[in-house]
Amino acid sequence: MRTVEWDNGAVKMIDQRLLPGTFEIAEFTDYREVARSIKEMYIRGAPAIGAAAAFGMALAAYQSAADEPTTLMRDLEAAAEVLRRARPTAVNLFWAVDRVLRVAADQKLSSPDDIREAVLADAQALADEDVEINRRMAAHGAALVRDGDSILHHCNTGALATVDYGTALGVIRMAHEQGKKIHVFVDETRPRLQGARLTAWELQQLGVDFTLIADNAAGHYMRTGQVDICFVGSDRTAANGDVANKIGTYKLAVVARENGIPFYPVVPTSTVDLNCPTGDDIPIEERDPEEVVGLTRQGMPIAPAGIQVGNPAFDVTPARYVTGIVTENGVAYPPFGLSLRKMVLGEGDR
Amino acid sequence: MRTVEWDNGAVKMIDQRLLPGTFEIAEFTDYREVARSIKEMYIRGAPAIGAAAAFGMALAAYQSAADEPTTLMRDLEAAAEVLRRARPTAVNLFWAVDRVLRVAADQKLSSPDDIREAVLADAQALADEDVEINRRMAAHGAALVRDGDSILHHCNTGALATVDYGTALGVIRMAHEQGKKIHVFVDETRPRLQGARLTAWELQQLGVDFTLIADNAAGHYMRTGQVDICFVGSDRTAANGDVANKIGTYKLAVVARENGIPFYPVVPTSTVDLNCPTGDDIPIEERDPEEVVGLTRQGMPIAPAGIQVGNPAFDVTPARYVTGIVTENGVAYPPFGLSLRKMVLGEGDR
Repeated sequence: MRTVEWDNGAVKMIDQRLLPGTFEIAEFTDYREVARSIKEMYIRGAPAIGAAAAFGMALAAYQSAADEPTTLMRDLEAAAEVLRRARPTAVNLFWAVDRVLRVAADQKLSSPDDIREAVLADAQALADEDVEINRRMAAHGAALVRDGDSILHHCNTGALATVDYGTALGVIRMAHEQGKKIHVFVDETRPRLQGARLTAWELQQLGVDFTLIADNAAGHYMRTGQVDICFVGSDRTAANGDVANKIGTYKLAVVARENGIPFYPVVPTSTVDLNCPTGDDIPIEERDPEEVVGLTRQGMPIAPAGIQVGNPAFDVTPARYVTGIVTENGVAYPPFGLSLRKMVLGEGDR
Repeated sequence: MRTVEWDNGAVKMIDQRLLPGTFEIAEFTDYREVARSIKEMYIRGAPAIGAAAAFGMALAAYQSAADEPTTLMRDLEAAAEVLRRARPTAVNLFWAVDRVLRVAADQKLSSPDDIREAVLADAQALADEDVEINRRMAAHGAALVRDGDSILHHCNTGALATVDYGTALGVIRMAHEQGKKIHVFVDETRPRLQGARLTAWELQQLGVDFTLIADNAAGHYMRTGQVDICFVGSDRTAANGDVANKIGTYKLAVVARENGIPFYPVVPTSTVDLNCPTGDDIPIEERDPEEVVGLTRQGMPIAPAGIQVGNPAFDVTPARYVTGIVTENGVAYPPFGLSLRKMVLGEGDR
């Protein structure tokens, strides 16, 4: 199945909190439950969140008892607000909700049922497009991978972070499918361990050669010449090419540049926020301390009780550390101000 | 009690594997058990390992049934070899064992019992000197800390990493004792979480204000201007100032320099290896994959079974990222070739 899909009036998604130990499908029939599933990270990854939010809007349309378009629109606006509040950093959430709202507001739709159908069809289309876009990004990105390359990857950007196929991990997957002999260093990605739990699980299934490492070890492998190229995702990319992504990405990017290793975020244009001039305008989500201290080691807590914890979920990598930004319309190179805008407007090399 | 001490024919040490959940004292009467305790990290931290090894040599001296000096020396040489093999990176292990062997070989000692007493007395002296040296380092380091500073710290370098007081954490402790208002960002330090488990525990007891963070978050706090200065330890420092320390130190140092944040290893001269021209000559220990994948999260494993794991315990920070090296004889500044040698020879500013 896909990471998230519509099935007969319900939104189904893989509960990623339980992986790799347990594969379980969660099913929701209330858009508020979808908002909660995003907040609590049943589902994560900017593109997957976007698709989940779009399906959440479809649920809201069918949940609404409205018998005329303006009432339905009011209900949809209310649902949009709940979904938008689920997480602050990834822009796809806002992008998807706004896209669905625009479709719903189409004046040609005269009855509530027409609107409901249009909303669901658009959510479905958005999900289908995500898979298609990922394959196009993967093709652009895989062209940057040479036979024999060792690739560093942070967090999870695979099928599980999208509707299917993946962004940065999609690039790795396509390079592997093209028969290139590659090796992947998988950052475990504390605090939530998306690398250890999800990326390792996906790469194992794909048969890609990989080594799981603590995030701290990435610098050692880079400095000692064991990494050829880095691919990461992005939760929001500013107009100037500053990239907000999973916490730890910034350190990686700085150390990559220091060692002359190309560093490429793989970013569907839906993740580019031209309304954000720079990374400093991107809100950084602070999450539950429990994500940091809630692990156990041989049955024992990993930290003393009652301490103060900082847990920013994302960081900003300034554009000067970014070699290029892979989008579905081609690879944008610095200066990003113009090149990225071209990609978003679809004027890149398709 | 001290982290490691001699008590009536036995070596006692805090079993740090169990902290912060359980405070337990391990007691050994066989030097091979001391070697195992170092290997399995009951005790860790370069200075603490050195003292444990010296006490291990004292145990070996008393374990030996030798009734003449040459036989005893042969037994001590054998014990030295076992202790040296416990861990490869921290040079204090070799330094302490060699120092005790030199004392034992003193031609003025005519009977095995004289040698046994001399060996124990030297191990005891080495442990006492460690505490004294740490206080001198702390004074030199604390002079670099300004009132109001926010300090980033990696791994554990406190009382638990030494016989008592600490190296980098000793600096922080002394700044706090001097009444400076400071805040510490504590890197959790994957994979073994010495920051979360040990440094947080020590700072909590000392009453120092701190925030525990995932290692990945350190870059975010540095880039956003929330860190004023970094202090770390070192397991071995090469003659040119390259610093081998806990995995992740290199990334920190690079990002610190990128943000204009001073970066100071705090290094007793026993940790400086003038026989190592550069960091590339320092062997890097690869440890058990279980350290990376052996955690659980809500009762579930954090990674799929049967995967390949890379687990280098240390990395090398080239001297160009190091602002200064704090020793008990003063602070060495670049170029380190001469300045560090002066500190080792005791020609620094005491």
